[in-house]
Amino acid sequence: MKNKGLLLVISGPSGAGKGTVISSLFKKTSNLHYSVSATTRYMREGEKDGVNYFFLTKEAFEKEIDNDGMLEYAKYCDNYYGTPKKAVVDKLNEGIDVILEIEIQGALQIKEKFPDAVLIFIIPPKFSDIEKRLTGRNTEPPEIIKNRIETAKKEIKYINQYDYVVINDDVDNAANNIISIISSEKNKYSNMKNYIEKEF
Amino acid sequence: MKNKGLLLVISGPSGAGKGTVISSLFKKTSNLHYSVSATTRYMREGEKDGVNYFFLTKEAFEKEIDNDGMLEYAKYCDNYYGTPKKAVVDKLNEGIDVILEIEIQGALQIKEKFPDAVLIFIIPPKFSDIEKRLTGRNTEPPEIIKNRIETAKKEIKYINQYDYVVINDDVDNAANNIISIISSEKNKYSNMKNYIEKEF
Repeated sequence: MKNKGLLLVISGPSGAGKGTVISSLFKKTSNLHYSVSATTRYMREGEKDGVNYFFLTKEAFEKEIDNDGMLEYAKYCDNYYGTPKKAVVDKLNEGIDVILEIEIQGALQIKEKFPDAVLIFIIPPKFSDIEKRLTGRNTEPPEIIKNRIETAKKEIKYINQYDYVVINDDVDNAANNIISIISSEKNKYSNMKNYIEKEF
Repeated sequence: MKNKGLLLVISGPSGAGKGTVISSLFKKTSNLHYSVSATTRYMREGEKDGVNYFFLTKEAFEKEIDNDGMLEYAKYCDNYYGTPKKAVVDKLNEGIDVILEIEIQGALQIKEKFPDAVLIFIIPPKFSDIEKRLTGRNTEPPEIIKNRIETAKKEIKYINQYDYVVINDDVDNAANNIISIISSEKNKYSNMKNYIEKEF
Protein backbone atom coordinates (compact mmCIF):
# COMPACT_ATOMS: atom_id res chain seq x y z
CA MET A 1 0.00 0.00 0.00
CA LYS A 2 1.61 3.20 -1.20
CA ASN A 3 1.54 6.21 1.10
CA LYS A 4 -0.22 9.30 -0.12
CA GLY A 5 1.84 12.38 -0.91
CA LEU A 6 2.14 15.23 1.58
CA LEU A 7 0.09 18.36 1.08
CA LEU A 8 2.38 21.33 1.80
CA VAL A 9 0.93 24.79 2.12
CA ILE A 10 3.29 27.76 1.95
CA SER A 11 2.23 31.23 3.03
CA GLY A 12 4.03 34.33 4.16
CA PRO A 13 3.91 38.08 3.90
CA SER A 14 4.70 39.88 0.67
CA GLY A 15 8.46 40.48 0.65
CA ALA A 16 9.33 37.23 2.45
CA GLY A 17 10.78 35.71 -0.71
CA LYS A 18 8.41 32.72 -0.95
CA GLY A 19 8.81 32.44 -4.72
CA THR A 20 12.61 32.18 -4.70
CA VAL A 21 12.55 29.67 -1.82
CA ILE A 22 10.06 27.49 -3.71
CA SER A 23 12.16 27.71 -6.91
CA SER A 24 15.22 26.59 -4.95
CA LEU A 25 13.19 23.76 -3.41
CA PHE A 26 12.24 22.45 -6.86
CA LYS A 27 15.89 22.45 -7.90
CA LYS A 28 16.81 20.36 -4.87
CA THR A 29 14.02 17.81 -4.80
CA SER A 30 11.90 15.56 -6.98
CA ASN A 31 8.51 13.95 -6.37
CA LEU A 32 7.03 17.40 -5.77
CA HIS A 33 4.17 18.98 -7.72
CA TYR A 34 3.45 22.71 -7.75
CA SER A 35 -0.26 23.42 -7.72
CA VAL A 36 -1.09 26.29 -10.09
CA SER A 37 -3.90 28.47 -8.71
CA ALA A 38 -6.90 29.62 -10.69
CA THR A 39 -8.03 33.24 -10.90
CA THR A 40 -10.55 35.47 -12.63
CA ARG A 41 -8.26 38.51 -12.74
CA TYR A 42 -6.86 39.74 -16.05
CA MET A 43 -3.70 38.13 -17.34
CA ARG A 44 -0.77 40.54 -16.91
CA GLU A 45 1.94 41.02 -19.51
CA GLY A 46 4.39 38.13 -19.47
CA GLU A 47 2.00 35.78 -17.64
CA LYS A 48 0.98 32.46 -19.15
CA ASP A 49 -2.23 30.52 -18.68
CA GLY A 50 -1.50 27.31 -16.77
CA VAL A 51 1.89 28.58 -15.58
CA ASN A 52 1.31 31.64 -13.41
CA TYR A 53 -2.41 30.91 -13.02
CA PHE A 54 -5.23 29.17 -14.75
CA PHE A 55 -7.13 32.19 -16.03
CA LEU A 56 -10.87 31.54 -15.84
CA THR A 57 -13.92 33.64 -16.52
CA LYS A 58 -16.06 34.54 -13.52
CA GLU A 59 -18.74 32.14 -14.78
CA ALA A 60 -16.29 29.25 -15.21
CA PHE A 61 -14.85 29.86 -11.72
CA GLU A 62 -18.29 29.95 -10.10
CA LYS A 63 -19.24 26.76 -11.94
CA GLU A 64 -16.14 25.09 -10.45
CA ILE A 65 -17.16 26.28 -6.97
CA ASP A 66 -20.66 24.86 -7.47
CA ASN A 67 -19.22 21.53 -8.66
CA ASP A 68 -16.93 21.29 -5.58
CA GLY A 69 -13.99 21.73 -7.94
CA MET A 70 -12.03 24.12 -5.71
CA LEU A 71 -10.11 23.00 -2.63
CA GLU A 72 -10.26 26.56 -1.34
CA TYR A 73 -11.05 29.95 -2.81
CA ALA A 74 -11.38 33.56 -1.83
CA LYS A 75 -12.35 36.85 -3.45
CA TYR A 76 -9.88 39.76 -3.40
CA CYS A 77 -10.64 43.10 -5.08
CA ASP A 78 -13.61 41.54 -6.82
CA ASN A 79 -11.51 38.72 -8.34
CA TYR A 80 -11.63 35.07 -7.40
CA TYR A 81 -8.47 33.13 -6.51
CA GLY A 82 -8.56 29.41 -5.76
CA THR A 83 -6.92 25.98 -5.85
CA PRO A 84 -8.30 23.54 -8.45
CA LYS A 85 -9.04 20.31 -6.59
CA LYS A 86 -8.58 17.52 -9.11
CA ALA A 87 -4.86 17.90 -9.90
CA VAL A 88 -4.00 18.13 -6.19
CA VAL A 89 -6.02 15.07 -5.17
CA ASP A 90 -4.73 13.02 -8.13
CA LYS A 91 -1.07 13.78 -7.34
CA LEU A 92 -1.51 13.05 -3.62
CA ASN A 93 -3.10 9.70 -4.48
CA GLU A 94 -0.13 8.91 -6.74
CA GLY A 95 2.15 9.43 -3.73
CA ILE A 96 3.49 12.73 -5.04
CA ASP A 97 3.91 15.64 -2.61
CA VAL A 98 1.99 18.76 -3.59
CA ILE A 99 2.94 22.32 -2.75
CA LEU A 100 0.42 25.16 -2.63
CA GLU A 101 1.56 28.77 -2.34
CA ILE A 102 -1.56 30.49 -1.06
CA GLU A 103 -2.94 33.23 1.17
CA ILE A 104 -3.62 32.66 4.85
CA GLN A 105 -7.40 32.37 4.57
CA GLY A 106 -6.99 29.69 1.89
CA ALA A 107 -4.37 27.88 3.98
CA LEU A 108 -6.74 27.71 6.94
CA GLN A 109 -9.52 26.37 4.70
CA ILE A 110 -7.13 23.65 3.51
CA LYS A 111 -6.16 22.72 7.08
CA GLU A 112 -9.83 22.32 7.95
CA LYS A 113 -10.47 19.99 4.98
CA PHE A 114 -7.11 18.18 5.21
CA PRO A 115 -5.94 18.07 8.84
CA ASP A 116 -2.77 16.30 7.68
CA ALA A 117 -1.78 19.25 5.47
CA VAL A 118 1.54 20.74 6.55
CA LEU A 119 1.32 24.52 6.91
CA ILE A 120 4.60 26.42 6.54
CA PHE A 121 4.93 30.16 7.09
CA ILE A 122 7.96 31.83 5.49
CA ILE A 123 9.29 35.04 7.04
CA PRO A 124 12.41 37.13 6.61
CA PRO A 125 14.72 37.40 9.66
CA LYS A 126 13.17 40.66 10.93
CA PHE A 127 10.03 42.66 10.30
CA SER A 128 12.12 45.57 9.05
CA ASP A 129 13.30 43.27 6.21
CA ILE A 130 9.74 43.16 4.88
CA GLU A 131 9.67 46.96 4.77
CA LYS A 132 13.08 47.06 3.09
CA ARG A 133 12.22 44.44 0.48
CA LEU A 134 8.85 46.00 -0.34
CA THR A 135 10.36 49.50 -0.56
CA GLY A 136 13.40 48.28 -2.48
CA ARG A 137 11.32 46.97 -5.38
CA ASN A 138 10.36 50.57 -6.28
CA THR A 139 7.76 49.27 -8.71
CA GLU A 140 4.72 50.49 -6.80
CA PRO A 141 3.60 53.89 -5.46
CA PRO A 142 4.36 54.59 -1.75
CA GLU A 143 0.74 54.25 -0.59
CA ILE A 144 0.55 50.75 -2.10
CA ILE A 145 3.80 49.82 -0.33
CA LYS A 146 2.48 51.24 2.96
CA ASN A 147 -0.70 49.24 2.48
CA ARG A 148 1.30 46.04 1.87
CA ILE A 149 3.33 46.61 5.04
CA GLU A 150 0.10 47.01 7.02
CA THR A 151 -1.23 43.82 5.41
CA ALA A 152 1.99 41.98 6.30
CA LYS A 153 1.59 43.05 9.95
CA LYS A 154 -1.95 41.65 9.99
CA GLU A 155 -0.89 38.44 8.24
CA ILE A 156 1.86 37.68 10.75
CA LYS A 157 -0.77 37.53 13.50
CA TYR A 158 -1.91 34.23 11.95
CA ILE A 159 1.53 32.64 12.21
CA ASN A 160 0.45 30.60 15.26
CA GLN A 161 -2.02 28.70 13.04
CA TYR A 162 0.91 27.28 11.05
CA ASP A 163 2.79 24.08 11.85
CA TYR A 164 6.23 25.39 10.91
CA VAL A 165 7.96 28.73 10.56
CA VAL A 166 10.89 28.98 8.16
CA ILE A 167 13.14 32.04 8.29
CA ASN A 168 14.34 33.08 4.86
CA ASP A 169 17.73 34.38 6.01
CA ASP A 170 19.27 32.58 3.04
CA VAL A 171 17.31 30.99 0.18
CA ASP A 172 19.39 27.82 0.14
CA ASN A 173 19.07 27.39 3.89
CA ALA A 174 15.32 28.04 3.86
CA ALA A 175 14.81 25.48 1.07
CA ASN A 176 16.88 22.92 3.02
CA ASN A 177 14.72 23.54 6.08
CA ILE A 178 11.61 22.75 4.03
CA ILE A 179 13.27 19.57 2.72
CA SER A 180 13.90 18.54 6.34
CA ILE A 181 10.26 19.25 7.19
CA ILE A 182 9.12 17.03 4.28
CA SER A 183 11.50 14.26 5.37
CA SER A 184 10.49 14.39 9.03
CA GLU A 185 6.77 14.51 8.24
CA LYS A 186 7.19 11.23 6.37
CA ASN A 187 8.81 9.77 9.51
CA LYS A 188 5.86 10.73 11.70
CA TYR A 189 4.14 7.74 13.26
CA SER A 190 0.86 8.66 11.51
CA ASN A 191 2.60 8.46 8.11
CA MET A 192 4.44 5.23 9.00
CA LYS A 193 1.38 3.43 10.37
CA ASN A 194 0.49 1.58 7.14
CA TYR A 195 4.06 0.40 6.69
CA ILE A 196 4.38 -0.81 10.29
CA GLU A 197 1.06 -2.67 10.18
CA LYS A 198 2.22 -4.45 7.04
CA GLU A 199 5.78 -5.37 8.06
CA PHE A 200 5.52 -5.82 11.85
CA MET B 1 16.47 34.84 24.60
CA LYS B 2 18.20 31.63 23.63
CA ASN B 3 16.00 28.65 22.79
CA LYS B 4 16.35 25.56 24.93
CA GLY B 5 17.85 22.44 23.39
CA LEU B 6 15.64 19.62 22.15
CA LEU B 7 15.23 16.52 24.27
CA LEU B 8 15.43 13.52 21.91
CA VAL B 9 14.51 10.09 23.15
CA ILE B 10 15.55 7.08 21.09
CA SER B 11 14.07 3.63 21.66
CA GLY B 12 13.70 0.54 19.59
CA PRO B 13 13.80 -3.21 19.84
CA SER B 14 17.03 -5.09 20.41
CA GLY B 15 18.55 -5.73 17.00
CA ALA B 16 17.31 -2.49 15.45
CA GLY B 17 20.82 -1.04 15.37
CA LYS B 18 20.15 1.99 17.59
CA GLY B 19 23.78 2.20 18.74
CA THR B 20 25.28 2.41 15.25
CA VAL B 21 22.67 4.95 14.13
CA ILE B 22 23.44 7.15 17.14
CA SER B 23 27.20 6.85 16.50
CA SER B 24 26.66 7.96 12.90
CA LEU B 25 24.48 10.83 14.11
CA PHE B 26 27.28 12.11 16.36
CA LYS B 27 29.70 12.06 13.42
CA LYS B 28 27.32 14.17 11.35
CA THR B 29 26.21 16.75 13.84
CA SER B 30 27.39 19.01 16.64
CA ASN B 31 25.50 20.70 19.50
CA LEU B 32 24.30 17.28 20.65
CA HIS B 33 24.91 15.73 24.07
CA TYR B 34 24.58 12.01 24.78
CA SER B 35 23.05 11.35 28.17
CA VAL B 36 24.82 8.47 29.90
CA SER B 37 22.39 6.36 31.94
CA ALA B 38 22.98 5.22 35.51
CA THR B 39 22.65 1.62 36.63
CA THR B 40 23.18 -0.59 39.66
CA ARG B 41 24.12 -3.67 37.62
CA TYR B 42 27.71 -4.96 37.67
CA MET B 43 30.19 -3.43 35.27
CA ARG B 44 30.91 -5.89 32.43
CA GLU B 45 34.34 -6.44 30.99
CA GLY B 46 35.36 -3.59 28.69
CA GLU B 47 32.79 -1.18 30.14
CA LYS B 48 33.82 2.14 31.65
CA ASP B 49 32.16 4.13 34.40
CA GLY B 50 30.76 7.36 32.93
CA VAL B 51 31.01 6.06 29.37
CA ASN B 52 28.72 3.03 29.07
CA TYR B 53 26.89 3.82 32.30
CA PHE B 54 27.37 5.59 35.57
CA PHE B 55 27.72 2.56 37.85
CA LEU B 56 26.07 3.29 41.20
CA THR B 57 25.43 1.22 44.30
CA LYS B 58 21.80 0.42 45.06
CA GLU B 59 21.94 2.83 48.00
CA ALA B 60 23.35 5.67 45.90
CA PHE B 61 20.73 5.11 43.20
CA GLU B 62 17.87 5.09 45.71
CA LYS B 63 19.22 8.26 47.28
CA GLU B 64 19.15 9.90 43.84
CA ILE B 65 15.53 8.79 43.39
CA ASP B 66 14.62 10.26 46.78
CA ASN B 67 16.33 13.55 45.90
CA ASP B 68 14.44 13.79 42.57
CA GLY B 69 17.76 13.29 40.82
CA MET B 70 16.47 10.88 38.16
CA LEU B 71 14.45 12.01 35.15
CA GLU B 72 13.15 8.48 34.78
CA TYR B 73 14.09 5.11 36.15
CA ALA B 74 12.98 1.49 36.09
CA LYS B 75 14.00 -1.79 37.65
CA TYR B 76 14.91 -4.75 35.39
CA CYS B 77 16.08 -8.08 36.78
CA ASP B 78 16.50 -6.50 40.21
CA ASN B 79 18.80 -3.75 38.86
CA TYR B 80 17.97 -0.08 38.57
CA TYR B 81 18.45 1.82 35.30
CA GLY B 82 17.80 5.54 35.03
CA THR B 83 18.62 8.93 33.54
CA PRO B 84 20.48 11.36 35.81
CA LYS B 85 18.55 14.62 35.73
CA LYS B 86 21.10 17.39 36.29
CA ALA B 87 23.30 16.94 33.21
CA VAL B 88 20.24 16.73 30.93
CA VAL B 89 18.55 19.83 32.34
CA ASP B 90 21.81 21.83 32.31
CA LYS B 91 22.55 21.01 28.67
CA LEU B 92 18.98 21.81 27.56
CA ASN B 93 19.19 25.18 29.33
CA GLU B 94 22.46 25.89 27.51
CA GLY B 95 20.61 25.36 24.21
CA ILE B 96 22.29 22.02 23.55
CA ASP B 97 20.18 19.14 22.22
CA VAL B 98 20.25 16.03 24.41
CA ILE B 99 19.80 12.47 23.23
CA LEU B 100 18.63 9.68 25.53
CA GLU B 101 18.76 6.05 24.40
CA ILE B 102 16.30 4.39 26.76
CA GLU B 103 13.66 1.71 27.17
CA ILE B 104 10.02 2.35 26.31
CA GLN B 105 8.75 2.70 29.88
CA GLY B 106 11.43 5.32 30.55
CA ALA B 107 10.61 7.11 27.29
CA LEU B 108 6.95 7.37 28.26
CA GLN B 109 7.91 8.73 31.70
CA ILE B 110 10.01 11.39 29.96
CA LYS B 111 7.15 12.37 27.62
CA GLU B 112 4.89 12.83 30.63
CA LYS B 113 7.38 15.13 32.40
CA PHE B 114 8.57 16.89 29.19
CA PRO B 115 5.70 17.01 26.69
CA ASP B 116 8.07 18.72 24.22
CA ALA B 117 10.44 15.72 24.23
CA VAL B 118 10.76 14.20 20.77
CA LEU B 119 10.27 10.42 20.87
CA ILE B 120 11.88 8.46 18.04
CA PHE B 121 11.46 4.71 17.55
CA ILE B 122 14.09 2.97 15.43
CA ILE B 123 13.15 -0.23 13.63
CA PRO B 124 14.77 -2.38 10.96
CA PRO B 125 12.88 -2.65 7.61
CA LYS B 126 11.03 -5.85 8.55
CA PHE B 127 10.31 -7.80 11.72
CA SER B 128 12.24 -10.78 10.34
CA ASP B 129 15.35 -8.53 10.35
CA ILE B 130 15.15 -8.39 14.15
CA GLU B 131 15.13 -12.18 14.29
CA LYS B 132 18.03 -12.35 11.84
CA ARG B 133 20.13 -9.78 13.67
CA LEU B 134 19.48 -11.30 17.08
CA THR B 135 20.22 -14.81 15.83
CA GLY B 136 23.21 -13.66 13.78
CA ARG B 137 25.07 -12.36 16.82
CA ASN B 138 25.45 -15.94 18.09
CA THR B 139 26.65 -14.63 21.44
CA GLU B 140 23.67 -15.78 23.46
CA PRO B 141 21.94 -19.13 24.01
CA PRO B 142 18.84 -19.78 21.83
CA GLU B 143 16.35 -19.38 24.69
CA ILE B 144 17.71 -15.89 25.42
CA ILE B 145 17.39 -15.00 21.73
CA LYS B 146 13.84 -16.35 21.64
CA ASN B 147 13.04 -14.32 24.72
CA ARG B 148 14.45 -11.17 23.13
CA ILE B 149 12.36 -11.72 20.00
CA GLU B 150 9.23 -12.03 22.16
CA THR B 151 10.25 -8.86 24.00
CA ALA B 152 10.77 -7.06 20.67
CA LYS B 153 7.24 -8.06 19.59
CA LYS B 154 5.81 -6.60 22.80
CA GLU B 155 7.90 -3.44 22.51
CA ILE B 156 6.72 -2.70 18.98
CA LYS B 157 3.15 -2.46 20.28
CA TYR B 158 4.18 0.83 21.92
CA ILE B 159 5.34 2.38 18.65
CA ASN B 160 2.17 4.47 18.38
CA GLN B 161 3.24 6.37 21.51
CA TYR B 162 6.26 7.71 19.61
CA ASP B 163 6.35 10.90 17.54
CA TYR B 164 8.56 9.52 14.79
CA VAL B 165 9.52 6.14 13.38
CA VAL B 166 12.88 5.81 11.64
CA ILE B 167 13.61 2.72 9.57
CA ASN B 168 17.21 1.61 9.85
CA ASP B 169 17.49 0.28 6.29
CA ASP B 170 20.86 2.01 6.05
CA VAL B 171 22.72 3.59 8.98
CA ASP B 172 23.65 6.73 7.07
CA ASN B 173 20.10 7.20 5.85
CA ALA B 174 18.61 6.62 9.30
CA ALA B 175 21.00 9.16 10.86
CA ASN B 176 20.10 11.70 8.16
CA ASN B 177 16.43 11.16 8.91
CA ILE B 178 17.07 11.98 12.57
CA ILE B 179 18.99 15.11 11.55
CA SER B 180 15.95 16.17 9.51
CA ILE B 181 13.71 15.54 12.51
CA ILE B 182 15.94 17.74 14.69
CA SER B 183 15.94 20.49 12.05
CA SER B 184 12.18 20.42 11.49
CA GLU B 185 11.42 20.34 15.24
CA LYS B 186 13.35 23.60 15.56
CA ASN B 187 11.16 25.07 12.81
CA LYS B 188 7.94 24.19 14.64
CA TYR B 189 5.88 27.22 15.55
CA SER B 190 6.15 26.35 19.26
CA ASN B 191 9.96 26.48 19.04
CA MET B 192 9.95 29.69 16.95
CA LYS B 193 7.50 31.57 19.17
CA ASN B 194 10.12 33.40 21.25
CA TYR B 195 11.98 34.50 18.14
CA ILE B 196 8.84 35.76 16.42
CA GLU B 197 7.65 37.67 19.47
CA LYS B 198 11.02 39.39 19.64
CA GLU B 199 11.51 40.24 15.95
CA PHE B 200 7.96 40.76 14.66
